[in-house]
Amino acid sequence: MGKETKLKLSASRKDDFAKWYTEVITKSEMIEYYEDVSGCYILRPWSYSIWESIQSWFDKKIKKLGVKPCYFPMFVSQRALETEKDHVEGFAAEVAWVTKSGSSDLENPIAIRPTSETIMYPAFAKWIKSHRDLPLRLNQWTNVVRWEFKNPTPFLRTREFLWQEGHSAFANKCDADVEVLDILDLYSRVYEEVLAVPVIKGRKSEKEKFAGGDFTTTCEAFIAGTGRAIQGATSHGLGQNFSKMFKITYSGNDSHSSTPSNEYVYQNSWGCTTRTIGVMIMTHGDDKGLVLPPLVAPVQVVIIPIYNKKTGGDVVHEIIRRSNEIYKCLSEHEVRCTLDDRADKTSGWKYAHWEQKGVPIRIEVGPRDVESKTFTAVVRFSGEKINAAFNSVHSRVQSLLIAIQKQMLVIARKQRDENIRIAWDMDSFLSALNEGKMILTPWSCTTKSEEEVKALTKVLSRQNAAAENEETNEEGDTRSLTGAAKTLCIPFNQPYLPKGTKCFTGSGNAVCWCLWGRSY
Amino acid sequence: MGKETKLKLSASRKDDFAKWYTEVITKSEMIEYYEDVSGCYILRPWSYSIWESIQSWFDKKIKKLGVKPCYFPMFVSQRALETEKDHVEGFAAEVAWVTKSGSSDLENPIAIRPTSETIMYPAFAKWIKSHRDLPLRLNQWTNVVRWEFKNPTPFLRTREFLWQEGHSAFANKCDADVEVLDILDLYSRVYEEVLAVPVIKGRKSEKEKFAGGDFTTTCEAFIAGTGRAIQGATSHGLGQNFSKMFKITYSGNDSHSSTPSNEYVYQNSWGCTTRTIGVMIMTHGDDKGLVLPPLVAPVQVVIIPIYNKKTGGDVVHEIIRRSNEIYKCLSEHEVRCTLDDRADKTSGWKYAHWEQKGVPIRIEVGPRDVESKTFTAVVRFSGEKINAAFNSVHSRVQSLLIAIQKQMLVIARKQRDENIRIAWDMDSFLSALNEGKMILTPWSCTTKSEEEVKALTKVLSRQNAAAENEETNEEGDTRSLTGAAKTLCIPFNQPYLPKGTKCFTGSGNAVCWCLWGRSY
Repeated sequence: MGKETKLKLSASRKDDFAKWYTEVITKSEMIEYYEDVSGCYILRPWSYSIWESIQSWFDKKIKKLGVKPCYFPMFVSQRALETEKDHVEGFAAEVAWVTKSGSSDLENPIAIRPTSETIMYPAFAKWIKSHRDLPLRLNQWTNVVRWEFKNPTPFLRTREFLWQEGHSAFANKCDADVEVLDILDLYSRVYEEVLAVPVIKGRKSEKEKFAGGDFTTTCEAFIAGTGRAIQGATSHGLGQNFSKMFKITYSGNDSHSSTPSNEYVYQNSWGCTTRTIGVMIMTHGDDKGLVLPPLVAPVQVVIIPIYNKKTGGDVVHEIIRRSNEIYKCLSEHEVRCTLDDRADKTSGWKYAHWEQKGVPIRIEVGPRDVESKTFTAVVRFSGEKINAAFNSVHSRVQSLLIAIQKQMLVIARKQRDENIRIAWDMDSFLSALNEGKMILTPWSCTTKSEEEVKALTKVLSRQNAAAENEETNEEGDTRSLTGAAKTLCIPFNQPYLPKGTKCFTGSGNAVCWCLWGRSY
Repeated sequence: MGKETKLKLSASRKDDFAKWYTEVITKSEMIEYYEDVSGCYILRPWSYSIWESIQSWFDKKIKKLGVKPCYFPMFVSQRALETEKDHVEGFAAEVAWVTKSGSSDLENPIAIRPTSETIMYPAFAKWIKSHRDLPLRLNQWTNVVRWEFKNPTPFLRTREFLWQEGHSAFANKCDADVEVLDILDLYSRVYEEVLAVPVIKGRKSEKEKFAGGDFTTTCEAFIAGTGRAIQGATSHGLGQNFSKMFKITYSGNDSHSSTPSNEYVYQNSWGCTTRTIGVMIMTHGDDKGLVLPPLVAPVQVVIIPIYNKKTGGDVVHEIIRRSNEIYKCLSEHEVRCTLDDRADKTSGWKYAHWEQKGVPIRIEVGPRDVESKTFTAVVRFSGEKINAAFNSVHSRVQSLLIAIQKQMLVIARKQRDENIRIAWDMDSFLSALNEGKMILTPWSCTTKSEEEVKALTKVLSRQNAAAENEETNEEGDTRSLTGAAKTLCIPFNQPYLPKGTKCFTGSGNAVCWCLWGRSY
């Protein structure tokens, strides 16, 4: 019993979300804290396999769109990094610099990529000469480094992380814009179809868009446990900003014109990171540990033979034979399954172990199942128990896996929707914010009003935090709703906005609905 | 004609191998030189796709062996890096150090991984407690940095490169040693089955083994164009060296012993890099450019419709219809093919273009083919032309692709074998070395004799180079055979060694056959 108790989580999701998260990711063997360098984490097989599933799904889709794989160096000189001024300003503070090799100083410090626009685009300028070289659409799966000083959180904010970055160039803005949305659609499907996490697609405000780009589209998820939204993945229209700086031009239709005109290309960049895994964990996990959607679960079904010292030898023999048969049958049908027939662990320990690791279905085979030629399946996310005929195991399991995948999204969406408020004025905006909600408001879409709201909510949240500390005399409660509100996105899906509606800040007319909230 | 001439290589493989190589990799669009940071190169889709093929082949095999995927941080502190003394000495001079983030100095400099033993093994020590935690077998696909100052060569020696690194821990030496050889076998199959490059499997001498390891096994390839061998991939038995330094222990069979005894694990590490691609290019390429083995060719078949201004409209129509039909048929049978129906390029230009990119088969569809219901296939590596019935296209192409893959290895092996000499004494050793051969010699297997041979050949090669320079008054001819000879490996496949055979150096008895040569 000692071991079995140790296995359980000590923190509950509701009472201490931060501690709960740490326990879930470490006890499920997703993450090992890396003590050597702070802000870096080890992705163990249980989480890296999920990243592989995401990679494989997304990579196939973009290759079908015509995107080609490549690899660019991770080093970039200061000169190249600074070519696009707005861009470098967005990243400068977080750049890690290599200044020495062995015991000698480098002549010039070299940056490690925080993103690869400035690494790739000089090559784009070489490769693109004519309209026949367009579109150029590349993607790479790499590590990147952003040496942030905010509190790191495994998966969500780490100094080194894994991602894909797509970079493309088109002859005209229209084709470029189509790609921005095609990719954003794939990102939202990574979240919704693959990870069963609902997201809201939209456009970032001018203030929140990618440094150096024209516009940024995003899919935004919501972490109910902390009352914070999180940017899921972004797809940027860079316009001609970078092509002008890096001189990426193509000659127009040269056969019809005597003086070839050089046109700047339209570019996009788009990225999706291992953050996806953290959002998935926070969305579905419960007080027993991880809950994994079947599509990405490294193990989809665990089979546990159930007997004890009193069970008769013949029955034990039959239980084990049956368990092996189920394992063989499911494996042959490409269900990722495992048979936990360890003799030194109790069934109770095994239940807790595999629940903690989030395996979608547990199949139990016990004496009664042998007698009635049935098996028992227990669904991780709902706790539902199903008893079904032994000879239907593979069809039942496969349809169950599909149903679980769908149901998890339905339920997560319902919970997410409960966290959205509509606010027509500042008072209701602030009260919803205090409840840790996302808020949809009529907005004037001006940077000035965005900055005012940010400043106001920053002050208010400080006062709240101070008041809270006085009351409870507690420090550093990670659930306390501190920090300013900001715009998350202007959702593509816009409710009807009556003519003459005022901006919720009171100044000026609203021109769109905007989603606001505290954010990671 | 101007464009067509520009397309061709200006250097021949025989006359200027280094220039030939540079032209092959750039004109085929495998590599773009990265001007921003020296020693780094851009892997374009044409080469990165090959890396993906290698990854996919190898990753499936190791997963079947039970190796799990993971990702460890690329940063490591000086303290951790220095834990194993011999190990750090092997890499210290090439380590890149991050000392700044943004504009602030880091408290302690942080190294970028040159390899990950010292990053991974502290975690191994945490994870491994009991024999039930063993074996632990992990693999990661990453970039690594070794800031070398020798002349860089794309793929073969670059400051950043891509690889996989496997790291494992076993309860006993026997199981660990089995893995070392299992993996080496997979590496030799990557070369021989996947890349059609022959390799010699063997064990490294004490002098040449991995820094900090017990023994190193290797597969060695040979670049005839430079008269140099090259280490293809290595699989190391680390013994208990690292486990003692990092305190990686497991308790023995704790149920049978009252005082649990802590045993050190036996470890292996093994790696294979993008160097594979360079070796493949150097082995198969010719004066027309790349020659790709079908298994890794991003495009296996290019279909070129052939007609000119004089060809009748009906015939052109039929040629294009047929070409499309072939494209559709081959694509449906998962042959990677492309139809080059560009109107602005001549057939001659297209031939040269796809030959330069190394596409294994070109299918021509011309007026005569339409008339006789045939197609013409031209094999890139042999120049062979095949005329076959149109309706047999998919079966003919598929069997041809298989035959090409096999034949390329047969021919490469024959050429490699012509570059191996047997030498029983120093004179014949030196004369074979001067011819740019690999030399198999009876050897005493002592580090002293290895160092003597190295010193002697270094002096002689300097004298040779000086004499050569005087004669030809040329500098920097990269084909000149400079540099010392060293042991490449003690081949697993040992010819009969008559009793009492002397070491080829004259001092002492031979205990084995050893393969020597100049090396990358």
